[in-house]
Amino acid sequence: MIKHNFSAGPSVLPKSVMKQASEAVLNFDDGLSILEISHRSKSFVEVMDKARSLALELLGLEGKGYKALFLQGGASTQFLMVALNLLEKRAGYLNSGTWADKAIKEARIYDDIYEVASSKSANYNYIPKGYEIPEDYDYFHCTSNNTIFGTQMKNFPKSPVPMVCDMSSDIFTRQIDYSQFDLIYAGAQKNMGPAGTTLVVVKEDILGKVSRKIPSMMDYKLHISKGSMFNTPPVFAVYVSMLTMQWLKDLGGIKAIEKENEKKSSLIYSEIDLNPLFKGFAAKEDRSNVNATFTLENENLKETFETMLVEAGISNVNGHRSVGGYRASMYNALTLDSVKALVEVMSELESKA
Amino acid sequence: MIKHNFSAGPSVLPKSVMKQASEAVLNFDDGLSILEISHRSKSFVEVMDKARSLALELLGLEGKGYKALFLQGGASTQFLMVALNLLEKRAGYLNSGTWADKAIKEARIYDDIYEVASSKSANYNYIPKGYEIPEDYDYFHCTSNNTIFGTQMKNFPKSPVPMVCDMSSDIFTRQIDYSQFDLIYAGAQKNMGPAGTTLVVVKEDILGKVSRKIPSMMDYKLHISKGSMFNTPPVFAVYVSMLTMQWLKDLGGIKAIEKENEKKSSLIYSEIDLNPLFKGFAAKEDRSNVNATFTLENENLKETFETMLVEAGISNVNGHRSVGGYRASMYNALTLDSVKALVEVMSELESKA
Repeated sequence: MIKHNFSAGPSVLPKSVMKQASEAVLNFDDGLSILEISHRSKSFVEVMDKARSLALELLGLEGKGYKALFLQGGASTQFLMVALNLLEKRAGYLNSGTWADKAIKEARIYDDIYEVASSKSANYNYIPKGYEIPEDYDYFHCTSNNTIFGTQMKNFPKSPVPMVCDMSSDIFTRQIDYSQFDLIYAGAQKNMGPAGTTLVVVKEDILGKVSRKIPSMMDYKLHISKGSMFNTPPVFAVYVSMLTMQWLKDLGGIKAIEKENEKKSSLIYSEIDLNPLFKGFAAKEDRSNVNATFTLENENLKETFETMLVEAGISNVNGHRSVGGYRASMYNALTLDSVKALVEVMSELESKA
Repeated sequence: MIKHNFSAGPSVLPKSVMKQASEAVLNFDDGLSILEISHRSKSFVEVMDKARSLALELLGLEGKGYKALFLQGGASTQFLMVALNLLEKRAGYLNSGTWADKAIKEARIYDDIYEVASSKSANYNYIPKGYEIPEDYDYFHCTSNNTIFGTQMKNFPKSPVPMVCDMSSDIFTRQIDYSQFDLIYAGAQKNMGPAGTTLVVVKEDILGKVSRKIPSMMDYKLHISKGSMFNTPPVFAVYVSMLTMQWLKDLGGIKAIEKENEKKSSLIYSEIDLNPLFKGFAAKEDRSNVNATFTLENENLKETFETMLVEAGISNVNGHRSVGGYRASMYNALTLDSVKALVEVMSELESKA
């Protein structure tokens, strides 16, 4: 049976990538496994260099003063590194979801953090708009997509200070002007690869301006100077991320995948809006193209619906506990056919009800 | 041709582990890949729990107040976390190698760090001994094995304060009383698994005693309270580490592998001592059982020797640039046959010379 994995992350990767990764575990270079080669070997240095250049190329940031790094520790470690590297006096954060809230909490250890706007009191079902970013802030931080709530920033403010964006759930999924950001970070495990590495893309000229002594592993400048190999990198996770970015490039890049992603999200949101059994959670204008959140209006149908999902090979559509209901995560590697399978079950439930 | 991979890390893993890991990339649970399953799924939570309990079991630390964590960022991040979690006023470090020196440098950002002893002026070719550890230190930090120099602590001091040990290169390789340590950490990529995760084993009662606010990702207590899943863990690296620990347990644990490791190191050191072409780098009493460092006395034979190594399928025996010469890393998964192959080449070179 074909499996339709709607997991919010770690999540589905392209079949061809999984196949190549599986083979590399047995034989990557001259009979040696990708798991046993030195990270200083010529073959792995090539992988790291290619991963770094593919990231910039896909985002349209080549030759614009940016560097790409593949670090460890997830977005949660970036909450800390952003503050350590950029926060001198005060910064502004957009509180649009659980992860934004966590980023604020971490940065507050180091200095004054202001929320420029928040949708927390509405359980984050919309993206705050119409706020000001003061010119004396060290930086402004936002979250492009809120995985848990299914909201996504469709526009970004014109910031008078460096703009930092957590793109963990929607990097590489849509065409935007990535050069409006000064620092972008994203855990790999949604659109880029397996869990275990985090992409950081940073404009070099915003670094080196804080007075604190930054610990080595937290220092972007040091990681840049060492070509993202200050210490042993997560070799396998970087390799699979490189394969996934190469897959995306071969498909036609972000432009091509965006079209697919729009088909997928249009299909599911049409069903949510037209099928009286379901109701969307997020404000319509802020609906995420990668995480669709919705509830089943009639609780009596829950068991039937969930049995039908299992029978159709659909997994991981349960909503996050802070929202409830269902969530369909439709990252780059999830196929349109998987969304069709889900929509069919939703539609079939209506005809049964 | 059989490959003999003497890499200093990332390094060779058991063949059976590589095979299982390769299969799990295609199908780990019910048709889903280990790369695409949720870290909150029942099947992965079982992997994480098993990895944590196997680590304590193998080290003989079950039921003794210790917790095992699988974190990210390598030993280099532990240099920082140890200081953040344990350093209130001052601590003592044994400076026995490059990594110990780096650990000292990182901890100095936070407070006073004293070197209880150092072999730096001798290019770390021996392990300092006969030092005192003052009772008013917050902790004492040492490095059990120095990968670059091929030295290993055969005995550990009786410390009046918590003892922290970086065991990145020799954890699980020899029978010692692991309960003499209060905190042990080790990057996976030598004796435990692929690069991308770091084992931390910590006695809970030493935590929670510093006054600083510890950032979430740096906080051992928080990671313990979340079962090593505060954020998305490096799923694949933890899985392969679990497989490798299970392989070791099935072999008979540390007791059984220690015998093999002793055979391997006896064989290479005998050859180094008996073959007039070679000379050991480390002081004899401090020689490492996992990294043998040696030089070729006659530079004219270098090319011949290295050609013979390649022809025998032997790779990654070049010494670190700070020592020069050669280094044979003989971690748990390197077979006695690989050491025999290397010794044969060394012996053959003598007969040719």
